[in-house]
Amino acid sequence: MGRALIEAVSEAEGVSLTAAIDRPGNSLIGSDAGELAAIGKLGVAVVDNLDAVKNDFDVLIDFTAPAATIKNAEFCAQYGKKMAIGTTGLSAEQKAQLEASASKTAIMFAPNMSVGVNLCFKLLELAARVLGDEVDIEVLESHHRHKVDSPSGTALRMGEVVAETLGRDLNKVAVYGREGQDGPRDRETIGFATVRAGDIVGEHTVMFAADGERVEITHKATSRMNFARGAVRACRWLNERTTGLYDMQDVLGLR
Amino acid sequence: MGRALIEAVSEAEGVSLTAAIDRPGNSLIGSDAGELAAIGKLGVAVVDNLDAVKNDFDVLIDFTAPAATIKNAEFCAQYGKKMAIGTTGLSAEQKAQLEASASKTAIMFAPNMSVGVNLCFKLLELAARVLGDEVDIEVLESHHRHKVDSPSGTALRMGEVVAETLGRDLNKVAVYGREGQDGPRDRETIGFATVRAGDIVGEHTVMFAADGERVEITHKATSRMNFARGAVRACRWLNERTTGLYDMQDVLGLR
Amino acid sequence: MGRALIEAVSEAEGVSLTAAIDRPGNSLIGSDAGELAAIGKLGVAVVDNLDAVKNDFDVLIDFTAPAATIKNAEFCAQYGKKMAIGTTGLSAEQKAQLEASASKTAIMFAPNMSVGVNLCFKLLELAARVLGDEVDIEVLESHHRHKVDSPSGTALRMGEVVAETLGRDLNKVAVYGREGQDGPRDRETIGFATVRAGDIVGEHTVMFAADGERVEITHKATSRMNFARGAVRACRWLNERTTGLYDMQDVLGLR
Amino acid sequence: MGRALIEAVSEAEGVSLTAAIDRPGNSLIGSDAGELAAIGKLGVAVVDNLDAVKNDFDVLIDFTAPAATIKNAEFCAQYGKKMAIGTTGLSAEQKAQLEASASKTAIMFAPNMSVGVNLCFKLLELAARVLGDEVDIEVLESHHRHKVDSPSGTALRMGEVVAETLGRDLNKVAVYGREGQDGPRDRETIGFATVRAGDIVGEHTVMFAADGERVEITHKATSRMNFARGAVRACRWLNERTTGLYDMQDVLGLR
Repeated sequence: MGRALIEAVSEAEGVSLTAAIDRPGNSLIGSDAGELAAIGKLGVAVVDNLDAVKNDFDVLIDFTAPAATIKNAEFCAQYGKKMAIGTTGLSAEQKAQLEASASKTAIMFAPNMSVGVNLCFKLLELAARVLGDEVDIEVLESHHRHKVDSPSGTALRMGEVVAETLGRDLNKVAVYGREGQDGPRDRETIGFATVRAGDIVGEHTVMFAADGERVEITHKATSRMNFARGAVRACRWLNERTTGLYDMQDVLGLR
Repeated sequence: MGRALIEAVSEAEGVSLTAAIDRPGNSLIGSDAGELAAIGKLGVAVVDNLDAVKNDFDVLIDFTAPAATIKNAEFCAQYGKKMAIGTTGLSAEQKAQLEASASKTAIMFAPNMSVGVNLCFKLLELAARVLGDEVDIEVLESHHRHKVDSPSGTALRMGEVVAETLGRDLNKVAVYGREGQDGPRDRETIGFATVRAGDIVGEHTVMFAADGERVEITHKATSRMNFARGAVRACRWLNERTTGLYDMQDVLGLR
Repeated sequence: MGRALIEAVSEAEGVSLTAAIDRPGNSLIGSDAGELAAIGKLGVAVVDNLDAVKNDFDVLIDFTAPAATIKNAEFCAQYGKKMAIGTTGLSAEQKAQLEASASKTAIMFAPNMSVGVNLCFKLLELAARVLGDEVDIEVLESHHRHKVDSPSGTALRMGEVVAETLGRDLNKVAVYGREGQDGPRDRETIGFATVRAGDIVGEHTVMFAADGERVEITHKATSRMNFARGAVRACRWLNERTTGLYDMQDVLGLR
Repeated sequence: MGRALIEAVSEAEGVSLTAAIDRPGNSLIGSDAGELAAIGKLGVAVVDNLDAVKNDFDVLIDFTAPAATIKNAEFCAQYGKKMAIGTTGLSAEQKAQLEASASKTAIMFAPNMSVGVNLCFKLLELAARVLGDEVDIEVLESHHRHKVDSPSGTALRMGEVVAETLGRDLNKVAVYGREGQDGPRDRETIGFATVRAGDIVGEHTVMFAADGERVEITHKATSRMNFARGAVRACRWLNERTTGLYDMQDVLGLR
């Protein structure tokens, strides 16, 4: 993920890479960040603590682990730095700590920073609102052979967005597989079809099918660059904010 | 198209088929509309003029030809009937005549009544606004072997929606085919890829591709039922209006 | 199905429509076959028994019911007529009766006469043989909302073809849905993903996915014309045979 | 490409990485091959010439440049080493030199070593032979924004395979774009639809469309691992050969 962030920040307009931090003890500490990302020397050496670069940056992009993220947020709150956080797995308590820091500085927190996925949530809401109960809705998702849970969190969230818009309870209407003489389809259901194969990074399609036509909204991830590009976009947007806890829907103007 | 309308009106809630009109001289005049559509007897005989049924209906669905449509609109304006018009090819003068009729009754006029296609125009506008200049945009469309023009009108309209949202002139940025050593892609361009094959009713996909991810918005038509269902939806919506000229974006609440 | 057969036979080279039979008591008996299929008068009136047209045809296309098919086969065996049969649901005993008739005339019997589906079975066998155990195999199928069984018979047959080629037992390796923490994929499994939505006639994709690449073989049915065209192809092929029971793999030269 | 080869060889059964060669002067000479590929230490140091490892390997995988490949082939012929070559751009003269070396050792030479692409060529031949002139054929391909030529070499080769099978001349029947009032489709034509967008590694679909059905054969490349895996497969196959010049169709048993 670090390499994708280095590449995305370097390529983007309106932002520049001024510091790079990895965990202490890593053998890459001291290397040039650009060389690490195979995009040529950038003149920014990787360091192992935030304090060493505290005069060098405005916004911290944090894809670490919950405990580190909370500590980093406190540091940023103290020194007036903004933050874009892609860390997953925060507890309710840790989220509360994040909110506390966000009262002093601007923080964007999103477990999935993909611009495309966040856009799709909004497209799905609009499609479900317009097509309503005149369509059958199915969610198809494909991931690599190593993924251990089904359906993906993103697929479930897509199902939730659609269900909430239509006033349905996903727990009651979700169908996760079909086998045997299961009868004609009930319109209220939302079907999930899950493919696990090869090295597929992540593909999601929500199909809205009526008599005579179908609308499909599809997202295909091809690399971690999609998260990195989302992080860069968040950095630019945070630059205009002073305090508050935001998510990608705010960054993309989709609230 | 008449058969699809008969079927769609009969199936839908909140509307019912009370009259059916075909052009004079047609051998089907007098037949039962339901039997014609192969959905069983409906007790509505096909007639050859509006006057014969003027006490029988509230909203006229008109998929005819420009001259007939204008005459029908005048009739509807005079007798307080509403209209949903799917006729294509009206001249500027004829559109002005339609507007005159619409000052006396509520008329919905849309050359493409498909709910899905009209929804997609809105989804495309939203996607283009959010993804902006960070993506490459391509429009793919497939139609049957008999289609004589390329790209389809719907594909061009999709390109226009995207171009207008991004402040580009489609005439300048459209690319309709690629052959030979044509160099790397210019981000400003909007590419069209056109397939003509078999009996494909009509498929459109707009792809927004960035480094790391793609968003695709797809519409697939499978039969004329998609237009017929749009017409039925327009009828229900017109019921709440008294005068004015509207289109499907109004009906769908997408203005 | 009758209408599709009339259209397909009329359009094809090397065959012509010379008789049309429907069940006794049907109100369409006596109508012109071409007008029934909405392709214009053909001068062939629909009759209600084979005997009435026994001097008029060389090959009988039979899409009826098991009992009628067996009787028709005996008739054809007696009068030296050939047969292309698309009837489904024959018992073992009825199949034996069919074989008896086939010792006297040439009969092609296939529950699915689609040229494309039968070709796909062969493509799948070849793909499975070449890609072997280096790929993950998944079968995706989509059908309309009214279908009552899952996965489709064609999807299961596709899975069988692949499993047989690779020496696997489909009963042991098939996975019909995924939900929860089900762990990484086992290469031996063959996954089925089933979509039920709208008016989808029938779509099947078999995906072979390795690290670095995927091969997908897809069949999309759009109307009954695919069965009708297969039947016509069988008629032409039967013309060169005198006796024997065949299937579509024979007709297509894929044995 | 080197990293993908190191990974693919290390993962595969029946082969092992025993030597790794890069061009002289490269700063990576002396590094551990496994660490370079980010798959952990393998105990194989990268060297800068074949001679240094001439007792360490049986088959050389060569993805270099024409001149280097020819020299390597002479070396392999002299020392009884086999070769799998993925180098592109060899002149007619260089190919003749390769053949000379192949009279003394077994060489597999293929500009595209992808197992999937080579399989698809065979699937396309079979599909074209069975479906013949009853279908419309279209080739769709998508590549990243940096690609400078259209359609891709693989797409053109796919078109050639189909055209040759059907006795058509691709130069006469290829259509590379459609714009304006171009009339109904001529069955003999083979259409190419080309998408250039984002970071798409390479996707190819050949569609065979008839009335009532479509067959599609699709290849999607997701990384260079597809070439690397093909190279490994060639190595195992070469092990059973002593002399001769082969290609991937030989390796895959598709001749």
